[in-house]
Amino acid sequence: MMVQKHSGHYVLLASCPFQKRIAAKLTQFVYDLSSEIVDYDQYADIADNHFYCRMEWNPAAQNISDDEALTRFREEIAEPMNLRWNLRRNDRPLRLAVFVTRELAHLYALMMKCVSGLWDANIELIISNHPDLADEAARFNIPYHHLPIDKDNKAEQERRQLELLQDNEIELIVLSRYMQVVTEKIIAPYENRIINIHHSMLPAFSGAKPYHQAHARGVKLIGATSHYLTSQLDEGPIIAQEVKVVDHRKTVPALISLGRDLEANALARAVGLHINSRIIVSNGRTIVFD
Amino acid sequence: MMVQKHSGHYVLLASCPFQKRIAAKLTQFVYDLSSEIVDYDQYADIADNHFYCRMEWNPAAQNISDDEALTRFREEIAEPMNLRWNLRRNDRPLRLAVFVTRELAHLYALMMKCVSGLWDANIELIISNHPDLADEAARFNIPYHHLPIDKDNKAEQERRQLELLQDNEIELIVLSRYMQVVTEKIIAPYENRIINIHHSMLPAFSGAKPYHQAHARGVKLIGATSHYLTSQLDEGPIIAQEVKVVDHRKTVPALISLGRDLEANALARAVGLHINSRIIVSNGRTIVFD
Amino acid sequence: MMVQKHSGHYVLLASCPFQKRIAAKLTQFVYDLSSEIVDYDQYADIADNHFYCRMEWNPAAQNISDDEALTRFREEIAEPMNLRWNLRRNDRPLRLAVFVTRELAHLYALMMKCVSGLWDANIELIISNHPDLADEAARFNIPYHHLPIDKDNKAEQERRQLELLQDNEIELIVLSRYMQVVTEKIIAPYENRIINIHHSMLPAFSGAKPYHQAHARGVKLIGATSHYLTSQLDEGPIIAQEVKVVDHRKTVPALISLGRDLEANALARAVGLHINSRIIVSNGRTIVFD
Amino acid sequence: MMVQKHSGHYVLLASCPFQKRIAAKLTQFVYDLSSEIVDYDQYADIADNHFYCRMEWNPAAQNISDDEALTRFREEIAEPMNLRWNLRRNDRPLRLAVFVTRELAHLYALMMKCVSGLWDANIELIISNHPDLADEAARFNIPYHHLPIDKDNKAEQERRQLELLQDNEIELIVLSRYMQVVTEKIIAPYENRIINIHHSMLPAFSGAKPYHQAHARGVKLIGATSHYLTSQLDEGPIIAQEVKVVDHRKTVPALISLGRDLEANALARAVGLHINSRIIVSNGRTIVFD
Repeated sequence: MMVQKHSGHYVLLASCPFQKRIAAKLTQFVYDLSSEIVDYDQYADIADNHFYCRMEWNPAAQNISDDEALTRFREEIAEPMNLRWNLRRNDRPLRLAVFVTRELAHLYALMMKCVSGLWDANIELIISNHPDLADEAARFNIPYHHLPIDKDNKAEQERRQLELLQDNEIELIVLSRYMQVVTEKIIAPYENRIINIHHSMLPAFSGAKPYHQAHARGVKLIGATSHYLTSQLDEGPIIAQEVKVVDHRKTVPALISLGRDLEANALARAVGLHINSRIIVSNGRTIVFD
Repeated sequence: MMVQKHSGHYVLLASCPFQKRIAAKLTQFVYDLSSEIVDYDQYADIADNHFYCRMEWNPAAQNISDDEALTRFREEIAEPMNLRWNLRRNDRPLRLAVFVTRELAHLYALMMKCVSGLWDANIELIISNHPDLADEAARFNIPYHHLPIDKDNKAEQERRQLELLQDNEIELIVLSRYMQVVTEKIIAPYENRIINIHHSMLPAFSGAKPYHQAHARGVKLIGATSHYLTSQLDEGPIIAQEVKVVDHRKTVPALISLGRDLEANALARAVGLHINSRIIVSNGRTIVFD
Repeated sequence: MMVQKHSGHYVLLASCPFQKRIAAKLTQFVYDLSSEIVDYDQYADIADNHFYCRMEWNPAAQNISDDEALTRFREEIAEPMNLRWNLRRNDRPLRLAVFVTRELAHLYALMMKCVSGLWDANIELIISNHPDLADEAARFNIPYHHLPIDKDNKAEQERRQLELLQDNEIELIVLSRYMQVVTEKIIAPYENRIINIHHSMLPAFSGAKPYHQAHARGVKLIGATSHYLTSQLDEGPIIAQEVKVVDHRKTVPALISLGRDLEANALARAVGLHINSRIIVSNGRTIVFD
Repeated sequence: MMVQKHSGHYVLLASCPFQKRIAAKLTQFVYDLSSEIVDYDQYADIADNHFYCRMEWNPAAQNISDDEALTRFREEIAEPMNLRWNLRRNDRPLRLAVFVTRELAHLYALMMKCVSGLWDANIELIISNHPDLADEAARFNIPYHHLPIDKDNKAEQERRQLELLQDNEIELIVLSRYMQVVTEKIIAPYENRIINIHHSMLPAFSGAKPYHQAHARGVKLIGATSHYLTSQLDEGPIIAQEVKVVDHRKTVPALISLGRDLEANALARAVGLHINSRIIVSNGRTIVFD
């Protein structure tokens, strides 16, 4: 069943200390498999003496099995070159879990991309601390897990969340205006696989009610920031930012409304970049092959 | 000498608690002078129950003297309406002082506007804590005052600065990357008449080396903020902000270079808005009639 | 049934040649009804000697019937002032029809706003020349009318479209990437009530495959423009525009993908502005009270 | 005189059909000279099967003469790889000529960068069809050639322009709002070395008075485009674009003023990119290593 086995594309994200002939070795590896490179991008950070690349190839004519190819990659490329790497086979939709509270706009921005086939991804489940969006989940036939959280049950609910994530083989978690602190228990096993949206131009206005703060300062621009979640709240590697010009005529509700659109856009852009394997996290910042 | 006396335009900036017929009373006042309104803009902040307006008129056919007109305005309009107001007669260039250290880009952005006649303003003097830009001042025949500052002489030098500002009847001070803290001694007499530029999107990265901070966080946007100086450093009312998309490829020097252009633009925009009497400061924020 | 009768807000959009005391008369009218102004914005175009305003008020305590109020407005305000005006009572959702072909992204941007209650509007029906989006319409319980169009049946199908629009008392038509020319038969009865979306680039590429053209020219920005449809295709009054920075790395599919998001955003912004009665069309341009 | 001979940096811009080990061969060439790579960026256009790169290196420790290095590069790299390439030694300022008519803002944007040392370039001469800016040229000690153009003398004046350009060994021509058509006589010998600035709006207004047209259409964005001049007026490869949000409140003079700043910025950005050897022109579009 050659055809089925080698359907989809491979995407490699890799980084390593700068050394000679990296690009040559990586591309040669693909040519030796009789595969065809369909996209290649790299970035050499001369100051840090570090190399980053994204290589996408079509394995339709691959001349060995996937296992053999992988073994060869490890032995001939990754280990000798001291590569940090991530290889994804795009032969099935990525499995997403979305955490929500009450906000619909951000969830729809994600669902539209999945439903329309613009993303090769499915939302496998929605987890919420509130019941409000259950009907919308039902509309899209997505299992909705209402796990209310209070002071006493947080650890227990997180245990159940983790179970759901693992049982459903979730590959990416999206915090879509989930108004709860997610703890290390979830963050640790999903490092660089949890995307959060922050309702302002981080690092400005990192506290509560950022639009009220922005209005009080009379800012002339508002923004939204999507980032990978780390245990340092609002401090994780930034993926995408959106910004819009405003003036004094914008009331707080108008800022919130405008901000909601910016947030939904910045979140969807970040998730799309992750789904398409376009992000490497390195030293707390992202290299985005966009 | 009617013609000369009534040359130029008047610009009124005014604000007051919302009350009936404000706009009608203000415009009627101008009509009663036989003057012609050339621009009118207003903003009603319903939430704060406050009214703001900018009215510009041509007094060419004014039927009474300026003193009489002013007296009438005070008595019939300003006092009964409890107006906070500022009236400027644009019949001569506004008198600017620019404080610099070593950065030329921002100063040139200001000088170009003055030299070309795009602004109705002159740079009357340049004050610096360094000698570096003296030749450039000479190129434009602008007096350059080198007042080096160290721990011991700060108060004395500020006294001399203040003297220069007063002797030259300075109306607006521009801190054009002046790398010294300006104290209350200067700020108090020039409230809302000192414009500063901050090399980032305030309130983010308010400390030192903001471009290094921005690079380390891997931001996807950088910005610059111009604001009126208050004794709360970097906390004054924001006037104009500029922003630019960046990616991981931008090194710190590239960010600094891009940031310099944004800063120069944001500073020049703010100064231009002030020169054209387009800014009202109210409760720590600006109303900009742009 | 006072409460029901005077629920919702009123929004007045009005314009007229500049004359004395316009704002005073308009606001006084509302005060005389014992109603409360909740938003007021105006724009005086001095060059054209024209006045535009938007006034929103809460009629909860209105002291006369709606009919009486309307009559009084006509007689005392609109006629003597030679007002062009539009008054909307926001006491029920605005009735929308959406025309689509195959593109889902734009439709979802509209549906999300309706479903979530962010807009006070309902999509009453979807009309399409293709069957593709019928399932999505069903998901949202929106009647879907598949009216395929060919050379021979265009006039007949437009007659049926018009019938559907009238039978459903449609107040706003949204062309959501509807890939057919809409003729005067539909445009005339819905003047300034049909919103279209158009990709747009700098420079403009008016022919087919604009993103291919943009790629070939190596543009550094791509954009989208929403506008009211007129019989001059793509020449109607512009409502909202979106733009994004791109570089040579963006392939044609990447430009199309980015453009789709810009278009959906620009379309949704325009429709939202219309729904909230924030647009006056005057001399082929829009005054947007945003 | 090793030190002097190998001062400055080398910058190579190169493109070729995609082939194996391009990056490896290029970087190896530099290593073999005992030189140090200080910047490297590349772009592989998979769709066109084409490779582009920019490599910058420090020849301080170069172990052979420049002539030998160049010969070796030609024989071992450029010819066998079928490279289109451009190598610049940044050991002296690039020689610019600026063509102006009456607009000062754009010229100042260029002069500031040269005077301040931010660009490694000098304006060697200014050519104008008007005398207006002669005093400004004098202020900066730049020779100013007033060559008025009418129907009868155009060919003759272009001959003199060309003579001036050649006598002064000009490497880059900047059309800084030069309101004359430049013909093939100048364009041909300076292919991809003449940079022009063009206002540009969405949609494009190609005729006269574009800002009046933009105002009449009520555009919500205005922009500016810098590009290399080709014989197809305003159709040359785009280098940089700037855009700004506007609304109906902006009068035509306000649009012109804002547009002037955008144009000056877009022009200066383009010229800076060229001076730093960051642009490859290929098939009518630019690859910008920014």
